[in-house]
Amino acid sequence: MRNHEPRASSSCAACKLLKRRCTPSCIFAPYFRSDEPKKFAKVHKVFGASNVSKILNEVPEEQRDETVNSLAYEAEARLRDPVYGCIGAIALLQRRMVELQVDLAIARARLARYSASSPPILNDHGSMIPTLAELPACGHVPSQEFRFV
Amino acid sequence: MRNHEPRASSSCAACKLLKRRCTPSCIFAPYFRSDEPKKFAKVHKVFGASNVSKILNEVPEEQRDETVNSLAYEAEARLRDPVYGCIGAIALLQRRMVELQVDLAIARARLARYSASSPPILNDHGSMIPTLAELPACGHVPSQEFRFV
Repeated sequence: MRNHEPRASSSCAACKLLKRRCTPSCIFAPYFRSDEPKKFAKVHKVFGASNVSKILNEVPEEQRDETVNSLAYEAEARLRDPVYGCIGAIALLQRRMVELQVDLAIARARLARYSASSPPILNDHGSMIPTLAELPACGHVPSQEFRFV
Repeated sequence: MRNHEPRASSSCAACKLLKRRCTPSCIFAPYFRSDEPKKFAKVHKVFGASNVSKILNEVPEEQRDETVNSLAYEAEARLRDPVYGCIGAIALLQRRMVELQVDLAIARARLARYSASSPPILNDHGSMIPTLAELPACGHVPSQEFRFV
């Protein structure tokens, strides 16, 4: 939420582009600052200002920042790749996941053969090598950063 | 490309919804059949007919079917989840990939310890267990099916 940040200009980036007066109740103003004109230009080009406004009105205020971020990501992806947009990223991730699943299945099959024929292996501290469930949570997985992969 | 398929009606789903005359050169007609009204309704609601038309005009004719499929997927995702849209699927896939990478690293670390302390394991045919590179390609990975994950 950026509602309380000072605005760099009296008009937000959306109202500037749409050449209209920016009112205090402008739905775009908190999310499209006048010093970031490209962000609005992109979502406007892909979704249209009217649809963006409808979507923002549909979601609770505290989720509008996230909504604008995801719309901006999608718009950017569609402008880069007009055929697949961000579906290209999904297809790539699905392929990589299948590759990882195959690698993991192979590694586990080999482990199963080793553990059937050998005593358990101890780690440096003399205890069993931990399973995934025993490990601490696997670090920071950003939920807000939508990276191109 | 569905250009040569017979149309179920004289107007495509887009022209029906937009209440306009469907001409033989209609950009929507090959991809939005009159018996699939929801497909166009969804992309229209999220992207707007004008933006969809602009995107279709931008891509080569042989890629328009794919383009419409990816737009329909994105629109469907945004209508289901107005905050994240298909970015929700990307974030979930990224989290699952991190989990798989951790699992694989653990399995490989255990394997490295076993193989340092044991002779290589033979498979049922008396040969070494194949590495991933030795396996045949890992099955069908659909490039056109965009599934929710």
